[in-house]
Amino acid sequence: MTTTLITGGTVVSATGRTQADVLVDGERIVALIAPGASPFGTIEADVTIDATGKYVIPGGVDAHTHMQLPFGGTNASDTFETGTRAAAWGGTTTIIDFAVQRYGERVQDGLAHWHELAAGNCAIDYGFHQIVGGVDDDALKAMDTLVDEGITSYKLFMAYPGVFYSDDAQVLRAMQKATDHGLLTMMHAENGPAIDVLAAQLAESGKTSPYYHGIARAWQMEEEATHRAIMLADVTGAPLYVVHVSAKQAVEQLAAARDKGKNVFGETCPQYLYLSLEEQLGASSEEWGDFEGAKWVCSTPLRSRAEGHQDAMWQALRTNDLQMVSTDHCPFCMKEQKELGKDDFRAIPNGIGSIEHRVDLLYQGVVTGQITLERWVELIATTPARMFGLYGRKGVIAPGADADIVVYDPAGHTSIGVGEGRTHHMNMDHSAWEGYEIDGHVDVVLSRGSVVVADGEFRGTKGHGSYLKRDLSQYLV
Amino acid sequence: MTTTLITGGTVVSATGRTQADVLVDGERIVALIAPGASPFGTIEADVTIDATGKYVIPGGVDAHTHMQLPFGGTNASDTFETGTRAAAWGGTTTIIDFAVQRYGERVQDGLAHWHELAAGNCAIDYGFHQIVGGVDDDALKAMDTLVDEGITSYKLFMAYPGVFYSDDAQVLRAMQKATDHGLLTMMHAENGPAIDVLAAQLAESGKTSPYYHGIARAWQMEEEATHRAIMLADVTGAPLYVVHVSAKQAVEQLAAARDKGKNVFGETCPQYLYLSLEEQLGASSEEWGDFEGAKWVCSTPLRSRAEGHQDAMWQALRTNDLQMVSTDHCPFCMKEQKELGKDDFRAIPNGIGSIEHRVDLLYQGVVTGQITLERWVELIATTPARMFGLYGRKGVIAPGADADIVVYDPAGHTSIGVGEGRTHHMNMDHSAWEGYEIDGHVDVVLSRGSVVVADGEFRGTKGHGSYLKRDLSQYLV
Amino acid sequence: MTTTLITGGTVVSATGRTQADVLVDGERIVALIAPGASPFGTIEADVTIDATGKYVIPGGVDAHTHMQLPFGGTNASDTFETGTRAAAWGGTTTIIDFAVQRYGERVQDGLAHWHELAAGNCAIDYGFHQIVGGVDDDALKAMDTLVDEGITSYKLFMAYPGVFYSDDAQVLRAMQKATDHGLLTMMHAENGPAIDVLAAQLAESGKTSPYYHGIARAWQMEEEATHRAIMLADVTGAPLYVVHVSAKQAVEQLAAARDKGKNVFGETCPQYLYLSLEEQLGASSEEWGDFEGAKWVCSTPLRSRAEGHQDAMWQALRTNDLQMVSTDHCPFCMKEQKELGKDDFRAIPNGIGSIEHRVDLLYQGVVTGQITLERWVELIATTPARMFGLYGRKGVIAPGADADIVVYDPAGHTSIGVGEGRTHHMNMDHSAWEGYEIDGHVDVVLSRGSVVVADGEFRGTKGHGSYLKRDLSQYLV
Amino acid sequence: MTTTLITGGTVVSATGRTQADVLVDGERIVALIAPGASPFGTIEADVTIDATGKYVIPGGVDAHTHMQLPFGGTNASDTFETGTRAAAWGGTTTIIDFAVQRYGERVQDGLAHWHELAAGNCAIDYGFHQIVGGVDDDALKAMDTLVDEGITSYKLFMAYPGVFYSDDAQVLRAMQKATDHGLLTMMHAENGPAIDVLAAQLAESGKTSPYYHGIARAWQMEEEATHRAIMLADVTGAPLYVVHVSAKQAVEQLAAARDKGKNVFGETCPQYLYLSLEEQLGASSEEWGDFEGAKWVCSTPLRSRAEGHQDAMWQALRTNDLQMVSTDHCPFCMKEQKELGKDDFRAIPNGIGSIEHRVDLLYQGVVTGQITLERWVELIATTPARMFGLYGRKGVIAPGADADIVVYDPAGHTSIGVGEGRTHHMNMDHSAWEGYEIDGHVDVVLSRGSVVVADGEFRGTKGHGSYLKRDLSQYLV
Repeated sequence: MTTTLITGGTVVSATGRTQADVLVDGERIVALIAPGASPFGTIEADVTIDATGKYVIPGGVDAHTHMQLPFGGTNASDTFETGTRAAAWGGTTTIIDFAVQRYGERVQDGLAHWHELAAGNCAIDYGFHQIVGGVDDDALKAMDTLVDEGITSYKLFMAYPGVFYSDDAQVLRAMQKATDHGLLTMMHAENGPAIDVLAAQLAESGKTSPYYHGIARAWQMEEEATHRAIMLADVTGAPLYVVHVSAKQAVEQLAAARDKGKNVFGETCPQYLYLSLEEQLGASSEEWGDFEGAKWVCSTPLRSRAEGHQDAMWQALRTNDLQMVSTDHCPFCMKEQKELGKDDFRAIPNGIGSIEHRVDLLYQGVVTGQITLERWVELIATTPARMFGLYGRKGVIAPGADADIVVYDPAGHTSIGVGEGRTHHMNMDHSAWEGYEIDGHVDVVLSRGSVVVADGEFRGTKGHGSYLKRDLSQYLV
Repeated sequence: MTTTLITGGTVVSATGRTQADVLVDGERIVALIAPGASPFGTIEADVTIDATGKYVIPGGVDAHTHMQLPFGGTNASDTFETGTRAAAWGGTTTIIDFAVQRYGERVQDGLAHWHELAAGNCAIDYGFHQIVGGVDDDALKAMDTLVDEGITSYKLFMAYPGVFYSDDAQVLRAMQKATDHGLLTMMHAENGPAIDVLAAQLAESGKTSPYYHGIARAWQMEEEATHRAIMLADVTGAPLYVVHVSAKQAVEQLAAARDKGKNVFGETCPQYLYLSLEEQLGASSEEWGDFEGAKWVCSTPLRSRAEGHQDAMWQALRTNDLQMVSTDHCPFCMKEQKELGKDDFRAIPNGIGSIEHRVDLLYQGVVTGQITLERWVELIATTPARMFGLYGRKGVIAPGADADIVVYDPAGHTSIGVGEGRTHHMNMDHSAWEGYEIDGHVDVVLSRGSVVVADGEFRGTKGHGSYLKRDLSQYLV
Repeated sequence: MTTTLITGGTVVSATGRTQADVLVDGERIVALIAPGASPFGTIEADVTIDATGKYVIPGGVDAHTHMQLPFGGTNASDTFETGTRAAAWGGTTTIIDFAVQRYGERVQDGLAHWHELAAGNCAIDYGFHQIVGGVDDDALKAMDTLVDEGITSYKLFMAYPGVFYSDDAQVLRAMQKATDHGLLTMMHAENGPAIDVLAAQLAESGKTSPYYHGIARAWQMEEEATHRAIMLADVTGAPLYVVHVSAKQAVEQLAAARDKGKNVFGETCPQYLYLSLEEQLGASSEEWGDFEGAKWVCSTPLRSRAEGHQDAMWQALRTNDLQMVSTDHCPFCMKEQKELGKDDFRAIPNGIGSIEHRVDLLYQGVVTGQITLERWVELIATTPARMFGLYGRKGVIAPGADADIVVYDPAGHTSIGVGEGRTHHMNMDHSAWEGYEIDGHVDVVLSRGSVVVADGEFRGTKGHGSYLKRDLSQYLV
Repeated sequence: MTTTLITGGTVVSATGRTQADVLVDGERIVALIAPGASPFGTIEADVTIDATGKYVIPGGVDAHTHMQLPFGGTNASDTFETGTRAAAWGGTTTIIDFAVQRYGERVQDGLAHWHELAAGNCAIDYGFHQIVGGVDDDALKAMDTLVDEGITSYKLFMAYPGVFYSDDAQVLRAMQKATDHGLLTMMHAENGPAIDVLAAQLAESGKTSPYYHGIARAWQMEEEATHRAIMLADVTGAPLYVVHVSAKQAVEQLAAARDKGKNVFGETCPQYLYLSLEEQLGASSEEWGDFEGAKWVCSTPLRSRAEGHQDAMWQALRTNDLQMVSTDHCPFCMKEQKELGKDDFRAIPNGIGSIEHRVDLLYQGVVTGQITLERWVELIATTPARMFGLYGRKGVIAPGADADIVVYDPAGHTSIGVGEGRTHHMNMDHSAWEGYEIDGHVDVVLSRGSVVVADGEFRGTKGHGSYLKRDLSQYLV
């Protein structure tokens, strides 16, 4: 087996910093050694990576991605191959994607199909959550075997009636099943039936541009569903994890539940930290005109900056009312995909591609003083690993852990976008992050001991990534 | 230098568990090594400690002790020698004691005196907070040099008029100074002037037994002062750390402030997790009669179990509305000390001795499922180290850190008390924890690489403990 | 026209007390006169009622009754004739009953049917709210004409799927319509779909007794629906009135919304002030055994006294977080009606009969110091009249108002029940209030100037009561 | 005795409107009569006032005035004569002024002096609250006789150390005494000791202009003291009334206490509804330059409009989190008075004169839809009368009540100010309300049956006003 020594760097964990050399043997980390104080003398490794002046952090864990997701008559534009490659470029070494059951389908079939899509195609390791989009007796029975499959979390939708939607009776029954097995319930918390009325009324009154997507999906509808999910979780005893939180009032609901000691968690996404409804309203381009805003159509939607939602997300990351940041990576091209909704925002495929930029974008919070360096590592790697049963293997630099390691250069720089001189490896004809200038740079990325990114080159291989059978959440009391 | 290898144990950190051998060289940890996967072959160390089946955790950091404190006409009964030895017995390898300035004294003199008391006497490392009990121009000027002295936190009292009390004008001025220097403000948050009226009225009406101590110090008085401290901190921009929180309503104030993103923290103590006002009311012994309850007279006081304060403390430890557990170790003997207040609870020296039992008592929360193993480590070691600028040296098992290590046996057992067959090393003629049976046992304790406790023996030495110059808090955003 | 003079009494309003004689001319009050200070000399009236030592208050307005309601395969046992007569006995001179549209029916037909049921049968005046149990385009159109019909409030159900239930899309559309017309939205706020799952699971596991009705309808399900209704109201701009609030957590939701300035209101009912789930669990009789508890099966259900819901209702009446008290009068006999659910609590018709006792039961709150005399009048008469657009005619003793007047004797006594020596005029084979002893007594009742109760006799007439076209709510800002 | 008939008007109460004629005989109201429906035939009165198209409301009760108050080395510029005359002009027929005890004085002496100042000088009726500015054994004893003197409320100051300030021990003792006697505790809730530090720091750093008065008195200092007062009230069982609330966060504290069922009340003043810190910062005049802002120096201070305090006050008036509006009338001239603080804002006498304009200014809330007509009457007359034990005599149009009546013309207009064509009867060389244009006009004012204002003339007499012995508060449960 190849040995690799990462020397001279500052190992950053969720709680602090250590000057330590990291020794990798094959796929695993085998030792952390105080530099210059080693009783072993000089260590001879096959490969030595100089991390002097740089941060050595656990590889990013993106717990919310949607490769190849069928949505609105098309599919998310990143395959497992292109998407995981872009992830690696951005310092993410684990994804947890969503196997999909839609109403009328069988859970097992959806899962098998997702295994098929991913197997042999990934550059980094991957796991699955299970979307249960049609809770019935058969689906509930299928939930009995999820833990054995290494799938310890599943997702319900309070939005998208007719597609993924579960009504409250279905949510309740699924949560009861989750409680039986220790599954973590992930919730898309928006009041879909009410939103669909508002959206239809807007569209029918001629308000068809992308901006109205955000108007229809009012914060009240997210706040409401978040509270409802909390109460259904309370009555069933199920821990709850709310995905893609964007409204400050939804955070207030999470905080109130947590103040009462409930096992309620939430993630936000880079778009809710940086982008706003006002920018979407103002977006315009020569090619697309006002439809340019379609690139930022996602659900939950972008929120008003004047109302302070973005600041509230940063604050909640500091206070741990939100525990982690995922991307909800769900890319669609403007051509042939987003443009399906040119005449009606309701037909725009929902999603933004960010898998490549999450680590960098969050690091900007360190640069501006919004979060500490340690909290950055916790948000992008340690907590996602703990939350979803991967800790020990992922999310930490420790002996025995998989050697998923990022050498991050705080003095480096990254220019995001498809424009000239910029970098963008996702399979999209545009970037939602065009023009973002990042202080910091992902220099080297190791996935299970193999260098997959270094010297500005992708050195990984399709199929290197393995399926991760996950344990139960390690974040619960 | 001596090398020591701790093999076969489970290293527990604030975020998770790792099977790793820990190699110590002299006073520091130099490597963590995956067992059986070492590329170094078999490691030869001077000393090998077998930790198979046991937890290897960072030595406890007790951030709130009062050795030899003059109070109520007597002195806390543990010297730095006896107190730190008892600490070591209990798995605590760092204390932060309080240097004392009282009204009419100079800050520098108080600090110098405390250095004198501690130097050469401690079995484990120690640092100081500075009590500022008489805020005036001179004291404020003295605060300018605290950081250079390695004292990055100081304490004010909203209680004890005429002794340590600061009025709001004084609190405000001290906090402004703290903001200038990055000092962390520690607050005894009880409304002393109001409490003293209530206490006098009780005593004058013949309600003189120890129980009335808790009646006079009503939760409203703690809740109020906690809120007031938060607002004074808010107007000055000073981070705030509230000591010995015992009332659930005080926790609610902390939680509300934290929900708004404020840098407000709180500790609780073992007595507020386990003991209650009702038990104090019922306490009786042949020797002391109803005065037996005096052993539990401390401030803030024990709270009513019927009102749910104890459960609220455990909950707050889970939700991180309280961040850590200290002892407020302030022992007094019943004879000649506590009995000063035989006829009037107001004359009972306030304090409980727990320094020896904090690690064990908190571990019971793991046993009963109140907290996770990781949270235990965080509460007793990692967060105290981060909060008070010791992380890297203390609070973590990592290369480069001081080799302050505890091997904890979850299958062991500890019987607390001065009774037959029990253990008690504090300099007290009684134990506030008499009869507590603990699942778990502190097997081995290392302080800066030296074994100070092993095989049921104290092997440390008076004077081994060094003064710790502390950095600014590492817990703030 | 007959003139009537009520002399010597204390006229009690929502804000205070006045010694005044009340002169009635025909159907209306024409003057309030300071006794003994009249410049008119002695007033000669056809009828003089001596109210010395007694309270003269506006006749009670019970804004929530269900005469003859079809429910669970049977009909509420009071007709408009028997129910309004019982109301008069108890000092209530106005009811607002619910015209019913169920899913699949037309709103107009339901309303017409209710007019038919009531016309010519009532002893006191009556108005209607409209139940909209099937929101669709036709029903929404029918809502356009409600105000013209004198129906300025309508009710939706978040419970009872398949009967009255509206999903959130329907609620939203109805509220939008309500906003257009100034209609007040009344909401049965319980999460019906989730409750039905819980109820089925209980019943299927053999937990079929009446007590499990309350277990299935957990407070979380009321709290949740209350919050959801508030948010849907918020997004539509519709004022909201939540009926039969019983859970303290639902009150907290109302209070939180009101603290934010929202037009959100709530009523509670006598059963939620006095009766408890624990009593229901313990109920037993020779005739019915454990099924005795069926007499208290209503929705929302009785709540646990140990959890403090009853105290919370009284508190909310004091703090105006609840604005009024209605009965939700919906009587069913044990024989042939309640006993339909002998083997399954789900088949028990939901409802309690209290129309005769509301004024008396609430007066006990004055006796025990829970509410003031003024607040009593406000809760039972003035606010209901203001809330539902009847003020000026009803709810106040003032010149020009309908002469709906009660002379209430605080020194009198009332024994409730069907047992010997007790009084009970509702058409039920039992009383939910059997054995209640009331301090106070309804001595004389006038309805539009006519004495309908006096000297322990009913002197009213079937058909005296007129339909009340109501104005828009007078309680909104 | 003279009889007076007010005909054709709309009598407005706190709960609704009635078309009624009001008959006055001598000093009292003797009848309310339905117009045109009188069984008495045409009523012959000595004086008839035509109120057609106008509102007939109870005379305003201003429960917070400071005539001739010694403050900052000068005296409030309105005497009881000039101040009560101005009150009458503005539709206020009762004031409750503050008898003053300052530290070192005797309560009885202060009260006697105030009686001397007022007796024979007032145009309208007056009562007293007692300021207790030096709580000691003697003052506490003096509180025993207040109720007998007709003084059922007293005031403490948490601000103004060295003048009126009570520390928490004093507040506690006074509240205990208040609980014994049923006295209502009125609180000036600002943290004076902390404010004085901030003010001194500002002044010493050259920030001496009037604007810095508001900066020093930060909202945190009001919020804090409000919460503290609530907790001290809680521990003593004393009802609490917080005066001149201006910070939205203070309202949040009141609302939170009320949500818990506590007897906690608050008033705001016109200046906190209309004026702002930003306007004060921008104020300038030829004569006074930047010192112009001194006219708005009052405590609590004007608050920032950008922070939303004014909107919050209006909202709290709607939600009854604030119960009433007083003026805190405390006028000082710019010349020789306000200008004492030309070089240091700390020397500016604190106070604004509004006694003449409260009724008009609040009516603007009706015009703009912020409050209902009924709520207007409640805020300016009915609740102040109930709160301070005057209901029945004052605050209501009812038989037996004092004939303190205002005929208010909603179609009239009032121009406020000392400028040309404006009206201003207070003894001030400027108006804090210069330039305010009011929709509505006080047409006729009766005080105990005598017309004191009519036809744009003052017809009252010095000495007509009598001292009001007040009952205990009628607003408490």
